[in-house]
Amino acid sequence: MSPRQIEVSEPREVGITELVLRDAHQSLFATRMALEDMVDACADIDAAGYWSVECWGGATYDSCIRFLNEDPWERLRTLRKLLPNSRLQMLLRGQNLLGYRHYNDEVVDRFVDKSAENGMDVFRVFDALNDPRNMARAMAAVKKTGKHAQGTICYTISPVHTVEGYVKLAGQLIDMGADSIALKDMAALLKPQPAYDIVKGIKDTYGDKVRVSVHCHSTTGVTQVSLMKAIEAGADSVDAAVSSMSLGPGHNPTESVVEMLEGTGYTTSVNMDRVLKVRDHFKKIRPKYQNFESKTLVSTNIFSSQIPGGMLSNMESQLRAQGAEDKLDEVLAEVPNVKAAAGHPPLVTPSSQIVGTQAVFNVLMGGDYKKMTAEFADLMLGYYGESMGERDPEVAKKAQEQTGKEPIDCRPADKLDPEWESLKEEASKLEGFDGTEEDVLTYAMFPGVAPTFFAERPQGPKNVGLTEGQLKAAAEGQSAALSGPVTYNVTVNGITSTATVIPA
Amino acid sequence: MSPRQIEVSEPREVGITELVLRDAHQSLFATRMALEDMVDACADIDAAGYWSVECWGGATYDSCIRFLNEDPWERLRTLRKLLPNSRLQMLLRGQNLLGYRHYNDEVVDRFVDKSAENGMDVFRVFDALNDPRNMARAMAAVKKTGKHAQGTICYTISPVHTVEGYVKLAGQLIDMGADSIALKDMAALLKPQPAYDIVKGIKDTYGDKVRVSVHCHSTTGVTQVSLMKAIEAGADSVDAAVSSMSLGPGHNPTESVVEMLEGTGYTTSVNMDRVLKVRDHFKKIRPKYQNFESKTLVSTNIFSSQIPGGMLSNMESQLRAQGAEDKLDEVLAEVPNVKAAAGHPPLVTPSSQIVGTQAVFNVLMGGDYKKMTAEFADLMLGYYGESMGERDPEVAKKAQEQTGKEPIDCRPADKLDPEWESLKEEASKLEGFDGTEEDVLTYAMFPGVAPTFFAERPQGPKNVGLTEGQLKAAAEGQSAALSGPVTYNVTVNGITSTATVIPA
Repeated sequence: MSPRQIEVSEPREVGITELVLRDAHQSLFATRMALEDMVDACADIDAAGYWSVECWGGATYDSCIRFLNEDPWERLRTLRKLLPNSRLQMLLRGQNLLGYRHYNDEVVDRFVDKSAENGMDVFRVFDALNDPRNMARAMAAVKKTGKHAQGTICYTISPVHTVEGYVKLAGQLIDMGADSIALKDMAALLKPQPAYDIVKGIKDTYGDKVRVSVHCHSTTGVTQVSLMKAIEAGADSVDAAVSSMSLGPGHNPTESVVEMLEGTGYTTSVNMDRVLKVRDHFKKIRPKYQNFESKTLVSTNIFSSQIPGGMLSNMESQLRAQGAEDKLDEVLAEVPNVKAAAGHPPLVTPSSQIVGTQAVFNVLMGGDYKKMTAEFADLMLGYYGESMGERDPEVAKKAQEQTGKEPIDCRPADKLDPEWESLKEEASKLEGFDGTEEDVLTYAMFPGVAPTFFAERPQGPKNVGLTEGQLKAAAEGQSAALSGPVTYNVTVNGITSTATVIPA
Repeated sequence: MSPRQIEVSEPREVGITELVLRDAHQSLFATRMALEDMVDACADIDAAGYWSVECWGGATYDSCIRFLNEDPWERLRTLRKLLPNSRLQMLLRGQNLLGYRHYNDEVVDRFVDKSAENGMDVFRVFDALNDPRNMARAMAAVKKTGKHAQGTICYTISPVHTVEGYVKLAGQLIDMGADSIALKDMAALLKPQPAYDIVKGIKDTYGDKVRVSVHCHSTTGVTQVSLMKAIEAGADSVDAAVSSMSLGPGHNPTESVVEMLEGTGYTTSVNMDRVLKVRDHFKKIRPKYQNFESKTLVSTNIFSSQIPGGMLSNMESQLRAQGAEDKLDEVLAEVPNVKAAAGHPPLVTPSSQIVGTQAVFNVLMGGDYKKMTAEFADLMLGYYGESMGERDPEVAKKAQEQTGKEPIDCRPADKLDPEWESLKEEASKLEGFDGTEEDVLTYAMFPGVAPTFFAERPQGPKNVGLTEGQLKAAAEGQSAALSGPVTYNVTVNGITSTATVIPA
């Protein structure tokens, strides 16, 4: 490790962003936690002295309306009430907002306004390709509300991603008015040395006053060390999840992050008694969602494969659907080529799916981009923005030929027509639409799911976790067969009936 | 973190001690792994480039003869054959050897000789109280065989344990001829700053040539960072367990330790392909032993309670046996007093049991050491050696009064008479005794278990893991049907009744 260190005369305070209400359950059990399972922890969360409490984002919104029949805006308002002393934080996909496409600027403005109005304080704004133009409008909208605009660097490893490149991106975000910079490591790829170098580079280049926040997942087992080195390099806050909701595909444990700083030149102002109460609450809650949990506790595979777990299982199921499971190794070998052709985008939603599916297509159709997906063609033609690397001009030419679309080099959203009025009109025709801008935004984000959600909303929230009875049964080793209703044909004394059973 | 750092001109190589064959399964599932579940991994372990492979110790020996009907010496010889290129490493409790009392020096010599003869290379010698006199004879015996004598510092936190004290102890071990120093953190208490300070202190005081090895458990979630800081301070090797056998009460994952060093001034010469094969092997094996696994993944409780998990459950069961569960808080409050009275011994076997039981006695009998256990009296009178802190003279006086024993201040083993001949004679009378010195040693270590083991040895090793059939059943969630009655609400043709079913 390089000997460069920040000299500190007294313990420097490091902030903690607690992830338990958003990324922790998103990573551990597919964002399935119901609001009712959070409520009882809020008083302790609010008093624990975190720098911020992350509680909202694309997957949260999606899961709320798709699986939990919960209005995500109502969740936000409730958390705002229950956490009066906390900075609420959300993750915002730049021009994508919480959806999966680019939105017209007016929609971006209205979404940010409404989020701020409903109680959001800190907006962590990112773009999957790290294209600053895709973050600019959302950042400006946040600034206009007077809330905290956090510009984000998505960390990945590729031949074109360098410490210097990340530091330069931080500068672009600062020029946009970022109140702080987040270094976001969504795949647990960030090792201690680059964590140190990037944070140090930002501080050295733009001054120690620039606030830097570091977000790591824990999957590879190296990133708690990365947090330490980032702190040594000057990071002002780090993300963690309370221990009972930590590790695996999730995050480093809050208590461990606090404890590791003892005796160093760094400290936190976290109230450990409160943190332990938060821990105890979620220790009881987590088993309810065990059916959604991944079994992986630690894996360094991604360092060699460069392929995130979710992307891998996606490609496997695509191959299985084509009866071509035996081609997996070929597809895995093709991924780096496709990624390189696209200019080395970080592999996160949606770029991971786009690159992965194209790799499958290349292998199944005999290579050479004979058949491109619409999304991959768009990626090659600039419709998702610019990656840090250059796109392969040959492949881009094929994308143009196959789709008849022109390549663009402007900010993708500049090509979008105003859409707010038409979104409003479409939403207003839906059964259960309540007339609010929030509902228009829900329809805008998830037009496929919103109609059902609006119609069923009056039935109230669903909890998809195990019931107490099911938990008890599971604890007694009665798990799998009993988690839902099962219908049997039962023959008794020669007479057959159907029987539906469900745990009492 | 202090800015003192070792300057390195090129990556400095850090060795890895792989723990999977000893401490990993000891910590994760009570040392229950059978030799047959290790065999298939040995070729890869042997080629993985570890500095050493830990594979033997007190709990291994105990578990072999108590639960697995396996001759521990046969296990050692087999591993020696299967790991021809590896340094085999064991954990030796100084004058206690692998048993629970002090042995006469001749027994110590013979045990070390036989261990070396059967294939042991590296002897990690420790004493629960950190009393160098309890390690001296074993260290000398190892030196005489020409094998590697590693002197050990047991890390704990107390008002009398200081960085300077640990550094001084390292010096005493070096004076004894230690080939290297181990810093052993058996309770995951070692935080990054003291890890750095102790290793740096040893290197600064005795020279960079002194080889230092660091052993941490992972329970508190801070120690992977401690390993990093220890390496930055100059540690020459660190302990880890392959990822599929890591974390929880176990250790930091080998792959993560290797990966975290990328790009730093440190490197390892571990062959990752081989490590991943070792991982895959034990990934298959671990589920067999799931019934012995603890559920705790990460807990920082010990930082506030200072009480290791095993000691806590011990005290709880003692209280339960007396119908005094409600006194637990009082006992927990008494533990620090008892520990202080005994001069702040580190709480490991056997001191943790001795202190814990005395705390229970004090609470149940009305305090003030009215009734001491024989072991606690011995501890107070010097029969276990000296702790780093001073013992309370008042309590020592009571120990003397209650037992009629004189306090001692010599090396405890100096009080022991020769015992080899009588041990040999006693052992020779046992059914199944095979006439070897190894069998005499087995009898010496575990006189209560050896008779049954000798008699049943011809039946051959037992595997206490789940069978393939049981594993399959568990995977399919059929443990339910197998474990007891289940009550259902049964709706048949619209009529609901409750029905209790039990496997026919």
